Amino acid sequence: MKNYLKQDPWCIIEEGWHPQENKITESLMSLGNGRMGQRGNFEEQFSGETLQGNYIAGVYYPDKTRVGWWKNGYPEYFAKVLNACNWIGIHLKVGEEEVDLHTAKHVSAFRRVLDMQGGTLFRSCEVELNNGKQIRIESLRFCSMAEDTAGAIKYSVTPLNFSGTISFEVFVDGDVKNSDSNYDEKFWDAVLNDAGHNSGMVTVSTRKTNFHVCTAFAFTMYENSVEMEFQGKPTLKDKYAGVTVNIEAKQNVTYTMYKYAVNLSSLNFSIDNLPNEAKKILKSITSKGFESMLLDHQQVWADKWALSDITIEGDIMAQQGIRFNIFQLNQTYTGEDARLNIGPKGFTGEKYGGSTYWDTEAYCIPFYLSTAPEKVARQLLLYRYNQLDKAIENAQKLGFSNGAALYPMVTMNGEECHNEWEITFEEIHRNGAIAYAIYNYTHYTADYSYLEEAGAEVVLAIARFWSQRVNFSTDKNKYVMLGVTGPNEYENNVNNNWYTNYLAAWCLNFAIEVMEYLKAKSPENYHRIVEKIKFDETHELKQWRTIASNMYLPFDAKSEIILQQEGYLDKEQILVKDLPESSRPLNQKWSWDRILRSCFIKQADVLQGIYFFEEDFDLDTITRNFHFYEERTVHESSLSPCIHCILAAKIGDYEKAYEMYLRTSRLDLDDYNNDTEDGCHITSMAGTWLSIVQGFAGMRVVNSSLHFNPYLPQQWMQYSFKITFRKALLKLTITKDRIEIENQSGISTVLSVYDQEYKLDANSTLVI
Amino acid sequence: MKNYLKQDPWCIIEEGWHPQENKITESLMSLGNGRMGQRGNFEEQFSGETLQGNYIAGVYYPDKTRVGWWKNGYPEYFAKVLNACNWIGIHLKVGEEEVDLHTAKHVSAFRRVLDMQGGTLFRSCEVELNNGKQIRIESLRFCSMAEDTAGAIKYSVTPLNFSGTISFEVFVDGDVKNSDSNYDEKFWDAVLNDAGHNSGMVTVSTRKTNFHVCTAFAFTMYENSVEMEFQGKPTLKDKYAGVTVNIEAKQNVTYTMYKYAVNLSSLNFSIDNLPNEAKKILKSITSKGFESMLLDHQQVWADKWALSDITIEGDIMAQQGIRFNIFQLNQTYTGEDARLNIGPKGFTGEKYGGSTYWDTEAYCIPFYLSTAPEKVARQLLLYRYNQLDKAIENAQKLGFSNGAALYPMVTMNGEECHNEWEITFEEIHRNGAIAYAIYNYTHYTADYSYLEEAGAEVVLAIARFWSQRVNFSTDKNKYVMLGVTGPNEYENNVNNNWYTNYLAAWCLNFAIEVMEYLKAKSPENYHRIVEKIKFDETHELKQWRTIASNMYLPFDAKSEIILQQEGYLDKEQILVKDLPESSRPLNQKWSWDRILRSCFIKQADVLQGIYFFEEDFDLDTITRNFHFYEERTVHESSLSPCIHCILAAKIGDYEKAYEMYLRTSRLDLDDYNNDTEDGCHITSMAGTWLSIVQGFAGMRVVNSSLHFNPYLPQQWMQYSFKITFRKALLKLTITKDRIEIENQSGISTVLSVYDQEYKLDANSTLVI
Repeated sequence: MKNYLKQDPWCIIEEGWHPQENKITESLMSLGNGRMGQRGNFEEQFSGETLQGNYIAGVYYPDKTRVGWWKNGYPEYFAKVLNACNWIGIHLKVGEEEVDLHTAKHVSAFRRVLDMQGGTLFRSCEVELNNGKQIRIESLRFCSMAEDTAGAIKYSVTPLNFSGTISFEVFVDGDVKNSDSNYDEKFWDAVLNDAGHNSGMVTVSTRKTNFHVCTAFAFTMYENSVEMEFQGKPTLKDKYAGVTVNIEAKQNVTYTMYKYAVNLSSLNFSIDNLPNEAKKILKSITSKGFESMLLDHQQVWADKWALSDITIEGDIMAQQGIRFNIFQLNQTYTGEDARLNIGPKGFTGEKYGGSTYWDTEAYCIPFYLSTAPEKVARQLLLYRYNQLDKAIENAQKLGFSNGAALYPMVTMNGEECHNEWEITFEEIHRNGAIAYAIYNYTHYTADYSYLEEAGAEVVLAIARFWSQRVNFSTDKNKYVMLGVTGPNEYENNVNNNWYTNYLAAWCLNFAIEVMEYLKAKSPENYHRIVEKIKFDETHELKQWRTIASNMYLPFDAKSEIILQQEGYLDKEQILVKDLPESSRPLNQKWSWDRILRSCFIKQADVLQGIYFFEEDFDLDTITRNFHFYEERTVHESSLSPCIHCILAAKIGDYEKAYEMYLRTSRLDLDDYNNDTEDGCHITSMAGTWLSIVQGFAGMRVVNSSLHFNPYLPQQWMQYSFKITFRKALLKLTITKDRIEIENQSGISTVLSVYDQEYKLDANSTLVI
Repeated sequence: MKNYLKQDPWCIIEEGWHPQENKITESLMSLGNGRMGQRGNFEEQFSGETLQGNYIAGVYYPDKTRVGWWKNGYPEYFAKVLNACNWIGIHLKVGEEEVDLHTAKHVSAFRRVLDMQGGTLFRSCEVELNNGKQIRIESLRFCSMAEDTAGAIKYSVTPLNFSGTISFEVFVDGDVKNSDSNYDEKFWDAVLNDAGHNSGMVTVSTRKTNFHVCTAFAFTMYENSVEMEFQGKPTLKDKYAGVTVNIEAKQNVTYTMYKYAVNLSSLNFSIDNLPNEAKKILKSITSKGFESMLLDHQQVWADKWALSDITIEGDIMAQQGIRFNIFQLNQTYTGEDARLNIGPKGFTGEKYGGSTYWDTEAYCIPFYLSTAPEKVARQLLLYRYNQLDKAIENAQKLGFSNGAALYPMVTMNGEECHNEWEITFEEIHRNGAIAYAIYNYTHYTADYSYLEEAGAEVVLAIARFWSQRVNFSTDKNKYVMLGVTGPNEYENNVNNNWYTNYLAAWCLNFAIEVMEYLKAKSPENYHRIVEKIKFDETHELKQWRTIASNMYLPFDAKSEIILQQEGYLDKEQILVKDLPESSRPLNQKWSWDRILRSCFIKQADVLQGIYFFEEDFDLDTITRNFHFYEERTVHESSLSPCIHCILAAKIGDYEKAYEMYLRTSRLDLDDYNNDTEDGCHITSMAGTWLSIVQGFAGMRVVNSSLHFNPYLPQQWMQYSFKITFRKALLKLTITKDRIEIENQSGISTVLSVYDQEYKLDANSTLVI
């Protein structure tokens, strides 16, 4: 666990340079705007430990699959998030020496600050070069939330102990590599590049997928506050465009460059028009100017925070942690484009390839549902609808028929991006989470239009999958589901994973309800769909009902415990508390087979099901199963503790709930898993939000109204969060002695607190 | 299924060239002598379809592992069989044109013949070049069985329609690659090379492992039968040494080169001495001459055939098939060196890496036990004993302790060479086969010295592994074994695979017996071992007994079927006969998950156990289980049909037995699985031998004597085979009306035929 950052409610602050932690800091200080993102790399040359990363949402490369042993059904290529053109670059020379913080004689007064409120990254430092010259560097940059193709940098250099030549080579460089390339290939080809006296551009295209990305820049220079005239010298190299300006700098005078850059991709612009469009936007932002762009950008952030902020009093670490998570979620996904989704690393690293896991449906959608306009969550659902044909193809490849859909475990464009058979082919519960998210959206928003227009088709295709994936066991006289991997990936290829079986039965019932709903309420859509998918009403509904009501659900009658899977009790039952510290984390200390045959659980599995379907279980059942499984869970997935936190809170085990909360809230800030250098755990950040809102505040939607069951963790003075529910914006504040619910919208709403119903008028406050 | 080779009892004959099948023919016409091997490649340049391969036993390269997703416990490197220096090469030029059968204008009168009786490869053809010149080429070569570092080639060229210059560049070339290199690396570095007027040599060394291999050659030339004087011109290139001789050739005169080559490795010679030793041996074979070397070589083959030949009358295809299998087994492994083993492809290809699978113990050892001096099988056992420390290390890596050993799934030097978790970590029944082979050797030979001196330690370390690998299930009140893969690799990570559990219990009992035997009969070894392995007599023996007698063995009481694993009857029960042809082979047509959850079986699993422990089961049980599992077995492993053949014969289902026999006997000759181009299935060839000897002839060792229960497949006129049993050499001939057993040795023996006991005096014949 790292602990080198300063505590602050709104900022992430590195004070004094920590070069050995630089890759971690770069991950943490990544900026994004939903369309592009940039790790916290330095603008100037840096030869020390670094992972250079600039990412353009939706632009991917199908890297050739690498396997130890090929299995039928594996995808031949995987879509990978691409490291794209470096748009922040500035080669800085003082005299003949290139400034490089790794090779410089001395770096002092270093400060790097991510301001989450305004979405900017600031850096300042003093550098003594090997030639004895000392300079001060300051930079401030952002990826504009207001104009999502644009980024801007204010970059200042002040000679501290000399007057002399300083040269700036401002550049964009598309000759970049992915560090996770399977065969060490480069993914980008040159298309064109161009440079003038104060601007340049590079267009590159991806191999195979032929995405074109044009990165263009222009810059202005100031001597203190006076704009300078200059004639930069252009340099063109392969996939590179630079402009060099030499300045005869005076001691203690500050030379500031404003670099404006745009990243346009052929996802949104026609290939032929890319350079012209880039020039147009570049011209517009340059004439708007840095400060004015920054104001627009900060206004968007202010609006986002107004809907999504959580304040915590009495615990600045917790405050910083939760804001960091909300900040990252908001800059990773904005809901502007249904082709995009939320990668596990967002814009903070390349790891894991692909962009979409079931994390989106199970963890992120609830966050966006409550903290952003409905459209945002709806776009995430639409993403899956748009990939339905590919999911049907995917299922066909595995032997399913009749329009059954299996969504990929990991995907970018709808095709599978993963190839471990036990996951790709068997961790099929993801399909259920996708149906569940449609239910969740509809239930939360009461907006049935998505279901009618698109969602129903997804639900039906998923139901068809389950109906083919089970088989009838004459031995058990039940439907069984063989060869699956549940959310607990420390079990593979098990039979009758309870969570998967329960979720599958639920999906079948939900599909039946959906068809009944459509038939009654939206007959036009009903008939459209029956026609489109050749739905056999009599046979299919009957079959689904039969399966759903005869699904085998493993249960131990003696202990009254739901069994994670058949045979779970054959394992040697050891509790996590009895595991020696030297064995943790298991995934680093134990061989894979030992993990598999142990009783230890990576992440909520039975409990994930109880969390999804809480209303189906009485408190005793929840309590009994929670204790049984929590004692066996090692939480070696960042997605695990939040579910345990919520259920612990539900059963009144507040100590456990807080312990679980702590494991997610600062996972990346404290580099808890020793892997933040690869990027942040974006999707699991939604789990921290869930821990507070559904855990500590006990928020549920029951029968179309919000229910709360809040308590204040004893470590805090108070906390406050905002929820948008069916257009009503509520601010809840929970203090030691009262609960305040402020309706900040013009819509009245009914809600329950501790099972007592209240009506909350528009713009009124309820105090309990 | 390919069918382009001619039928012949002793030869494999390609008549007329089949360039599209060239890689298959190259595999089939591989030569070896236990120490080195060479695919049936052409001597001269060939730019068409070919897999060049020359292999030196025991010389390997640890290639960096390639995986899709790393699991703890995977080996970082894999030992791979290496494609080594090409020693057969001759660049042949006619005028300015290099002879290349792929680019030549016309090839006719092509004939390639593998003579299995004498172990030679002959080729002849007429070639019309693009310059219009026609030549005849003839070559004859062998890898000497008498001098196992040496190979020799007689290579003749006759100009048919011209007189003019013909040039021979005789060479050895170490600049070769493995086609299965994971990262496209070359594995060999240059050490030195040298060439003179009629000889040359190249020494190369392997990267990382630093094996040195010196390949040296010398040659003589004849004009018709008259030796020619010549001064060759040396050429040295990287890892290459060549000598060019230009001849003014006359029409219809034959120019013959005798190329003598040696391959010496640092496995057997000190690195410093390699070139001198190579020269010495080269000198000796050159002065001996081709014909004389050939005679020595053929004498060794005559001796081998005298012990191992099987004759079949009335079915020339079957005769050719069985001889091909015996030939390959004998040229792959000779038992000269306990560091060597039997790779699945022998010297016929690179595929699968590593050299040793459980195939050796389960299939090959019975073959060598019966057809070769005792020492041969003993060397194979010694190989495992010598790797015991590595097997203990391997088990430690996976979390086992107290000297428990897990032998690798695939190995070269004792380290694991495989990395699919479901195989590497879970297909642990291999450990049992290794203990079983020790039992088998001792039981067959009555030679207890191996057990006492070495084998006991292996058996004990294996017993310790099983005792830790099981756990007690309080739920079942039995010991269970979770997370294994049985021989049927179409099931992964199952619980309580019957075969593995049964074999483990047997191993524990065998280990107890071994300790009791040693204590009584070889107290010195007993004490040595107790000391060496810190054996806790009281505790360990008791624990082993408890586990062995309380092992959970899945069984279905209703159908009285042994269950392949727990839950097998939950699968949809479909029979192979009801599978559409379009689904076969499953491993090419179905996705992996579909295969896994189906009831279909890749290879004998329960039946492998019944085969090993036949005496434990009554005929009804064998029959019932055979029918149940045979109906569900797709035989998509070359190791499967032989076991089914033997059991079908046992229960009197002769039609099924013959059907199964046909699936192995010509697997490679007919390219049944469409993969012979990668090399032949060497280890499964032992299965064909087993099918005849244990299947049709019903040979068993019961209570220290041979039992036979022979019948003649109706497709045959008669068959005959030889068996060495405790120094007695028996020749059995089974005809339509009688069984003849000829004792060809000076030792009398007792045996049973159809459960009737006979005493067979030295050099006498029994006719029944």
